[in-house]
Amino acid sequence: VKINTVILGFGNVGRGFASVLLRKAEYLHKRLDIQLIVLGVVEIGPDGSFHSAFSEHGLDLMKLLETRRKTGTISAYSGAGGHYSSLELIERSGAQLMLEMTPTNLKEGEPGLSHIGAALARGMSVVTSNKGPLLFGFKDLKRLAEDNNVGFGYSAAVAGALPIIPTGCYALAGCQVDSIEGILNGTSNYILTEMTNSGVAMQQALVKAQQMEIAETDPRLDIEGYDTAFKLLISANSIMDADAKISDVKVSGIEHVTQDAIEQTRSRGCMLKLIGRARRTDDHVDMSVGLEEIHPEHPFYSVNGIWKAVKFETDLLGGIVLLGGKSDPELAAGAMLRDIVNLARESRIEGGGRLDKRF
Amino acid sequence: VKINTVILGFGNVGRGFASVLLRKAEYLHKRLDIQLIVLGVVEIGPDGSFHSAFSEHGLDLMKLLETRRKTGTISAYSGAGGHYSSLELIERSGAQLMLEMTPTNLKEGEPGLSHIGAALARGMSVVTSNKGPLLFGFKDLKRLAEDNNVGFGYSAAVAGALPIIPTGCYALAGCQVDSIEGILNGTSNYILTEMTNSGVAMQQALVKAQQMEIAETDPRLDIEGYDTAFKLLISANSIMDADAKISDVKVSGIEHVTQDAIEQTRSRGCMLKLIGRARRTDDHVDMSVGLEEIHPEHPFYSVNGIWKAVKFETDLLGGIVLLGGKSDPELAAGAMLRDIVNLARESRIEGGGRLDKRF
Repeated sequence: VKINTVILGFGNVGRGFASVLLRKAEYLHKRLDIQLIVLGVVEIGPDGSFHSAFSEHGLDLMKLLETRRKTGTISAYSGAGGHYSSLELIERSGAQLMLEMTPTNLKEGEPGLSHIGAALARGMSVVTSNKGPLLFGFKDLKRLAEDNNVGFGYSAAVAGALPIIPTGCYALAGCQVDSIEGILNGTSNYILTEMTNSGVAMQQALVKAQQMEIAETDPRLDIEGYDTAFKLLISANSIMDADAKISDVKVSGIEHVTQDAIEQTRSRGCMLKLIGRARRTDDHVDMSVGLEEIHPEHPFYSVNGIWKAVKFETDLLGGIVLLGGKSDPELAAGAMLRDIVNLARESRIEGGGRLDKRF
Repeated sequence: VKINTVILGFGNVGRGFASVLLRKAEYLHKRLDIQLIVLGVVEIGPDGSFHSAFSEHGLDLMKLLETRRKTGTISAYSGAGGHYSSLELIERSGAQLMLEMTPTNLKEGEPGLSHIGAALARGMSVVTSNKGPLLFGFKDLKRLAEDNNVGFGYSAAVAGALPIIPTGCYALAGCQVDSIEGILNGTSNYILTEMTNSGVAMQQALVKAQQMEIAETDPRLDIEGYDTAFKLLISANSIMDADAKISDVKVSGIEHVTQDAIEQTRSRGCMLKLIGRARRTDDHVDMSVGLEEIHPEHPFYSVNGIWKAVKFETDLLGGIVLLGGKSDPELAAGAMLRDIVNLARESRIEGGGRLDKRF
């Protein structure tokens, strides 16, 4: 099956995806009968200007990556370069699938939210790596996808190497999930591990994490617990059918952890971990993020460094724990590819977007 | 979507499935739009005779369970009881889905192998909890399902509470899985844990496991490593696309483990575990089962008692670890329900079996 595809965003994630796609093209074709034809790509420059490449016959990804590397813009792609906006590409391309990999906006999810909405409403399936739109419009986007009978994949936006969403969706299909708890942020787990193992202060551990490029230059979202809360919220809205907003999550982080607290926890034989927790109550889902003492019998006790973990409690299958540790630029690409394969398997990627007759 | 279903086997697993189905019927209908209509059930009595209940309008599962409990045979189901054979039910029912839950035959997989083959060839989807047919005919059955464009679910046959097959199939979709290693047998892991914690001999730990109904009366398959080998083999054939037989797996078990060996391992800070291991080589997949010393950094170190674990190494998503611990009669039911939901989602359960005109 050939899938005509457009890509929004060609930063690290987008270019990582293109590289992975080149490497896996033969595997996808021969083993899974999937051929992704990339018709168009749009990237927004630092000045807000649109750069695009579009050909109804498909772009050569190798050439696209090379053009981007050599000239700094995909609009230099010979014969197909231009300056379509994201919406123009959605309307113009008639593609069946949109891959949304623009930078995350945590204020109101735009422009990803509008773009995903426009694509779904037009009958295109969407796979995204972008948390923003999920934080502000998950239920609406999900409903839009259902109403238009198209696929909507978002597992790459929730801890790519830890397949929380596919596990909830497929491995636990038919179960009611009663709780989700997890170590969902690699940076804060690395810092806590470093403080425990090396006896250093929080600030020193953070600097080391930044040197190792585990922590961002602005690490506040990680250490204040918000990245954990975002992943928890999307997971609970998706898997536990909650209908919550980020303001419904009680959030605290690791920013005030002292060596003293670490030592006291160790003296009790435990480990201090930043845990996100969603629990089903009679009529809704309670969510919180905060430090917890983890006992040696708990499967999270030995989840250290940048490893993440999640535990689901279910009615039919008991407790299921997932651990995953990979963290690199190609991870999101792998997670997006997974969503594409699963949607293709469910025959959710079909038909193709309705062409806008204005073009 | 209504799914006309027949059930082969009405022992603990079959009756457990019926109970779970009664309990989850509303959830399945309202949330997932799935209605399972059980048209017929066949059970083979201890004397080899067939007992059946069949109605083209569907059976009342509550009444079926009650009839079985009160009279010892489903053929006493008023108005629909009889003595159809398994093949007669397959041919007669025109059902879309067959649930195969007959006892496992580890010699040649029969009669499950023939029954599954007959159903698939007739255009019925099949979900099974039975290892036997998978050990002897996995590739053939898989191909038969593809050729007939129907679904074939078997995750319940491979460590139900540890969703190895759905993880390989969905969470790791698009990845190449390079190795699978796991603690796949709860009984032997329980015995090793008990030997470690209580300092008792293998034989004593086994007796305790039998008293707690963790170990079977005949525990040889568990402690000699074969149950682990069976699960490993099915996983590798399914997820790593191996094409191996049980004789290709080097198997050793825990039957000769002494307290001395346990103590020596502990003195090195490690734990002794029975590990199944499948590794991709240039041209095939190497498989073995045996005791290994597990270091404290390894995620299996703290997998104790009846908990099981599996670790996948993949090209795109790095290492993914799964832990699961539940073990009860309803587990297989939960795993089968999962397969049914996933196949329905992929629209693999459609059409219905081709009716045999002889009836």
